[in-house]
Amino acid sequence: MVQKLKIAAAGLGRMGARHAINFLHRTPRAELVAAFTPDSKELAWARINLEPHGVKLYTNYDEMIKQEGLQAVVIGTATSVHAEEAIKAMHQGLHVLCEKPLSTNIPVALKHPHLKVMCGFSRRFDESYRDAWDKMDRGLIGRPTIIRSQTCDKHDPSDFFVEYAAWSGGVFVDMSVHDIDLTLWFFGDDIQVKSVSAYGMRAVQPELAKYDDYDNAMGIVEFWNGKVANFYCSRMMAHGQEDVTEIIGTEGKLTVNGNPQKNFVNYYGPQGVTREVPAHYYGRFEQAFVAEANEFAAACLDNTALPLKLRNAVKAVEIGALLQEALVKGIQIRLNEAGQRVSEVSASKL
Amino acid sequence: MVQKLKIAAAGLGRMGARHAINFLHRTPRAELVAAFTPDSKELAWARINLEPHGVKLYTNYDEMIKQEGLQAVVIGTATSVHAEEAIKAMHQGLHVLCEKPLSTNIPVALKHPHLKVMCGFSRRFDESYRDAWDKMDRGLIGRPTIIRSQTCDKHDPSDFFVEYAAWSGGVFVDMSVHDIDLTLWFFGDDIQVKSVSAYGMRAVQPELAKYDDYDNAMGIVEFWNGKVANFYCSRMMAHGQEDVTEIIGTEGKLTVNGNPQKNFVNYYGPQGVTREVPAHYYGRFEQAFVAEANEFAAACLDNTALPLKLRNAVKAVEIGALLQEALVKGIQIRLNEAGQRVSEVSASKL
Amino acid sequence: MVQKLKIAAAGLGRMGARHAINFLHRTPRAELVAAFTPDSKELAWARINLEPHGVKLYTNYDEMIKQEGLQAVVIGTATSVHAEEAIKAMHQGLHVLCEKPLSTNIPVALKHPHLKVMCGFSRRFDESYRDAWDKMDRGLIGRPTIIRSQTCDKHDPSDFFVEYAAWSGGVFVDMSVHDIDLTLWFFGDDIQVKSVSAYGMRAVQPELAKYDDYDNAMGIVEFWNGKVANFYCSRMMAHGQEDVTEIIGTEGKLTVNGNPQKNFVNYYGPQGVTREVPAHYYGRFEQAFVAEANEFAAACLDNTALPLKLRNAVKAVEIGALLQEALVKGIQIRLNEAGQRVSEVSASKL
Amino acid sequence: MVQKLKIAAAGLGRMGARHAINFLHRTPRAELVAAFTPDSKELAWARINLEPHGVKLYTNYDEMIKQEGLQAVVIGTATSVHAEEAIKAMHQGLHVLCEKPLSTNIPVALKHPHLKVMCGFSRRFDESYRDAWDKMDRGLIGRPTIIRSQTCDKHDPSDFFVEYAAWSGGVFVDMSVHDIDLTLWFFGDDIQVKSVSAYGMRAVQPELAKYDDYDNAMGIVEFWNGKVANFYCSRMMAHGQEDVTEIIGTEGKLTVNGNPQKNFVNYYGPQGVTREVPAHYYGRFEQAFVAEANEFAAACLDNTALPLKLRNAVKAVEIGALLQEALVKGIQIRLNEAGQRVSEVSASKL
Repeated sequence: MVQKLKIAAAGLGRMGARHAINFLHRTPRAELVAAFTPDSKELAWARINLEPHGVKLYTNYDEMIKQEGLQAVVIGTATSVHAEEAIKAMHQGLHVLCEKPLSTNIPVALKHPHLKVMCGFSRRFDESYRDAWDKMDRGLIGRPTIIRSQTCDKHDPSDFFVEYAAWSGGVFVDMSVHDIDLTLWFFGDDIQVKSVSAYGMRAVQPELAKYDDYDNAMGIVEFWNGKVANFYCSRMMAHGQEDVTEIIGTEGKLTVNGNPQKNFVNYYGPQGVTREVPAHYYGRFEQAFVAEANEFAAACLDNTALPLKLRNAVKAVEIGALLQEALVKGIQIRLNEAGQRVSEVSASKL
Repeated sequence: MVQKLKIAAAGLGRMGARHAINFLHRTPRAELVAAFTPDSKELAWARINLEPHGVKLYTNYDEMIKQEGLQAVVIGTATSVHAEEAIKAMHQGLHVLCEKPLSTNIPVALKHPHLKVMCGFSRRFDESYRDAWDKMDRGLIGRPTIIRSQTCDKHDPSDFFVEYAAWSGGVFVDMSVHDIDLTLWFFGDDIQVKSVSAYGMRAVQPELAKYDDYDNAMGIVEFWNGKVANFYCSRMMAHGQEDVTEIIGTEGKLTVNGNPQKNFVNYYGPQGVTREVPAHYYGRFEQAFVAEANEFAAACLDNTALPLKLRNAVKAVEIGALLQEALVKGIQIRLNEAGQRVSEVSASKL
Repeated sequence: MVQKLKIAAAGLGRMGARHAINFLHRTPRAELVAAFTPDSKELAWARINLEPHGVKLYTNYDEMIKQEGLQAVVIGTATSVHAEEAIKAMHQGLHVLCEKPLSTNIPVALKHPHLKVMCGFSRRFDESYRDAWDKMDRGLIGRPTIIRSQTCDKHDPSDFFVEYAAWSGGVFVDMSVHDIDLTLWFFGDDIQVKSVSAYGMRAVQPELAKYDDYDNAMGIVEFWNGKVANFYCSRMMAHGQEDVTEIIGTEGKLTVNGNPQKNFVNYYGPQGVTREVPAHYYGRFEQAFVAEANEFAAACLDNTALPLKLRNAVKAVEIGALLQEALVKGIQIRLNEAGQRVSEVSASKL
Repeated sequence: MVQKLKIAAAGLGRMGARHAINFLHRTPRAELVAAFTPDSKELAWARINLEPHGVKLYTNYDEMIKQEGLQAVVIGTATSVHAEEAIKAMHQGLHVLCEKPLSTNIPVALKHPHLKVMCGFSRRFDESYRDAWDKMDRGLIGRPTIIRSQTCDKHDPSDFFVEYAAWSGGVFVDMSVHDIDLTLWFFGDDIQVKSVSAYGMRAVQPELAKYDDYDNAMGIVEFWNGKVANFYCSRMMAHGQEDVTEIIGTEGKLTVNGNPQKNFVNYYGPQGVTREVPAHYYGRFEQAFVAEANEFAAACLDNTALPLKLRNAVKAVEIGALLQEALVKGIQIRLNEAGQRVSEVSASKL
């Protein structure tokens, strides 16, 4: 019989439940054997959707990771705890697929080089981004020079994102980190930041001020090799989720998702021609998450390389944090080629 | 000084007024010297918009065409009279640019070979159609084999088109004639009809039945060289005017106006992404009409060839009439290579 | 534990193998327990890809369908045999999901009303078509009146489709049957054909003449309720697979796949802006096939209705055969409201 | 007879000649009576294209502006001289339509309040931009908050733009000034700059270093009312000219030219689906230039307001100069609400 990766799911919230289902039903080389959640509502869901398929349920994370034969864990719990959970899993000898961010685990991961530890930057598994990368790699656009990339979410009129801002790390760390990771992928992960500038607005959620966060933000990152990245993140979109990336080279450019669309339907009526846009990132990236689960399982079973290095996940978070600092302080931050700060202006907010 | 074509405009209704203005203001090598209309409202418009520019106004067509020095006339009067007017103009030695259809003037035109007589198929002057034709001519799509072409107008809820049907010749003659003309242009004007089938609906204007006409119609024309054309015309569009043409070849295809748009604006809102569509054909073809006026003037002044032969205009109307007959009688009409009918079914309307 | 539908796969060619994999890995409520193929190459593939997952392999169809506990079979063998196989499966008391066409099984199916017997019209399971149907059903386009629908495949320069034409039933039965099925779905399956006209070309495969088939064909079907469908099928596309459907109503229209695209990448270079197109229908409809497998399993297990009736599959084939006859004979076929022929012209091919 | 604005054209280079032709042939209410050029090649062109239409030619600007009856002048000479020429024209009592930039003429213009003095920001006359503005003004996107706007030209492999950089003022002043002007239009011309950051590359023209200029540049401008503009300019596009503007509001967004296209043709071939892009800005904005000429003539004749104030043209240049300074010095520049600088970093280029 086929050998399958025995994996557990930690956290069964919106994204955690999707990871669990993907490993349960859409990852032929994996077997979801356990799941953990401290939440009674999530547990009830799991009793219906996971348990009948032979998944053992836990309300204690530490117990779950000791389950006999367990080889890996996918962590989709609250951001505040998943670093700790990831470290525990590694100490237990488990491979880890963890939702971003994962900034603190590097030293631990280095102590367990045989373990696969991956932060879930799902766009790396998206067919369109991969096609764009291949086209760039084949030289279609000459020398890539500029990236413009945005993560823009449909406006959620509830207060959810205000409270979320208390611990999210700020919009650049929470949202643009995806675009920054793409930049490391397309420009090469050895690029070094030279300068960072950022600006933000609170156009629809003025209460974000209490956590020094913003509902729209823009930043530019200049690298020491002369390349430049321009990021935009927003939680204000009326039309839906719109992640767009543009890679501009000396001989051409590539766009990914320049014309967002929910499906292949166009409606022609008195208003003109209308197409709908996905309401959420899962509507855009569902197949990328499935690919991620499958490739993670394969890497663990076959001991092959993962498509993204843990170190990059950390680097992406660091750049996001630099942008967030420039944004909050209203300064331009400059680094030398060794990555040390060389100057900054602490301009009083005028 | 520059020699200019002295031209008169006959008919100052919607399209006639546009022709007058185009020759007056947008045709450097022409000089609008006279205009005729029997309509008092149109005349009032002309007193304001034409007369101050030195255009002499007439309420009698026959008088106008005798104006000293007049060289040409553009005819945009009611369909019912413009054939007669065109003939009179030719007898007077005037070049003629006439709105379609122009079926009856061939013999007269042949007697005046030095005169330029052109039927206004404006799409022949459209930049996009010309670009498509050039691409086809350069072999980009291999051997052109199939044309699909439609003339679809925004629904006009008034009864205008019911009464218009009394004398328009039917939708295939009135609307699809443009698509048929394009077919003669792209396939070559020597193609011979082999078979014709057509179907129609009265989906929004059931009263069209009294004139045996339809508000939507579809027909297929097979030619003796094996090429096929598929036409669709409609007066039912909710979104605006949508003329689309597709030329399918053995190695590729070309589309013209596959994504109709009024301008370059897209509106992203709760409904998704919306662009508007021109409400009328002039919104789509305005620049083609200007080009038509300029090229007509140049052909008259320089005695150069016009981009479309009068004979083709007649052929287009004949094919349109065949389609209309097939539609109304509910039969398939077949012709031999000499253009004679070889069979038809007079199926009783079941 | 979860109850799963025990299903067998008959035929492991290109499409059969996909069905097998979909039921094996992407249909949580099904368990692929057996597979049959008479082909040694396909068998070798199955030993690697199916057997390790517990799938029992057969080289004899009759033996396979007697496997203990088997509940259903998915038939993806050669068209010539799958009708017979479907009948045998039904006699064995098995639910059947069969690739089109499935014209002969109606009487047998009627004798086994408790069995789920479905012909695989995958577009019925496509998210975009379903969205378009829902929009139509909600009245967005008023009264649907016209369907234009095409099945156009990328040109395969080999002789494959010439020999395939020997038994495929002709392009209207083999290709347009999908568009006809969509017509029955969007217009209602009780519509009755009034008249049929069809035209075809052999633009890239003249050898198709020996089987009276064509590489491009167009046909119009008029129904007794006044609605009209215009079909186009082609095996000549240079750019890839392009299935487009347009539903035109009295107050708007819906298009599905009006702008074919392989993914979300656009390449801007000296040529302009280019996007790629899927090479094959599976590139367009993969997720629809997965949905089909899942919904079939659910219908069998829960004894719920399938989204398409077997009778419609037969009706679609019948209309395809009418079009093919009109095409080959060069006639217009007319039926009365009872479905009987009222006239036809046996025009000698001129 | 109709009263026409007697206008002279100064400069008959690429753009100057277009202005001359537009006033000669496409501006019914203007009469081109004179033209000036110091260039013998341009003069030869004028002898053929202007003189036969009654245009008097000059090789001395000062003489021309004294021509009897002259009322206005359109200035399309080299940037280095047109400020001086504009001032002379105003002293002569002439209305002035001047190509950008026009930074120095404000005081003179103020002394002649009866004169129409307009800097040619052609996008203000573009139908699409006007439609977008109207939609914003009608509240379609809520409160406009962010503008992203780019001016990107097709790469010219010659050295033209290197030498041009010697006196162009830099890319932000030369190119982005259009986007800045749009920002003043969409955000209101009373907005005050709070902070400016900019980054640039020399990706295809390293020799631009000698003039401290760049072939690609990006900048962000934050305004005191909280709105933000993100500009990108480039001379490196492989595909053609691509001016895109996005206006993002609290309840929607508008894009102008998000899908650049030369015309309505799409070519489907082995590469996929391709549309071409205009090679130059005139291919995109020709009709806007014609509208500009007509509206300028109307404003002069009727003494009505021009659609853009001279003061704004100056303000646009000033903001462009700020961006250019931030770019060249590698600093973030901050201004207080009175427009005075409050801090800057003279970071040594590391």
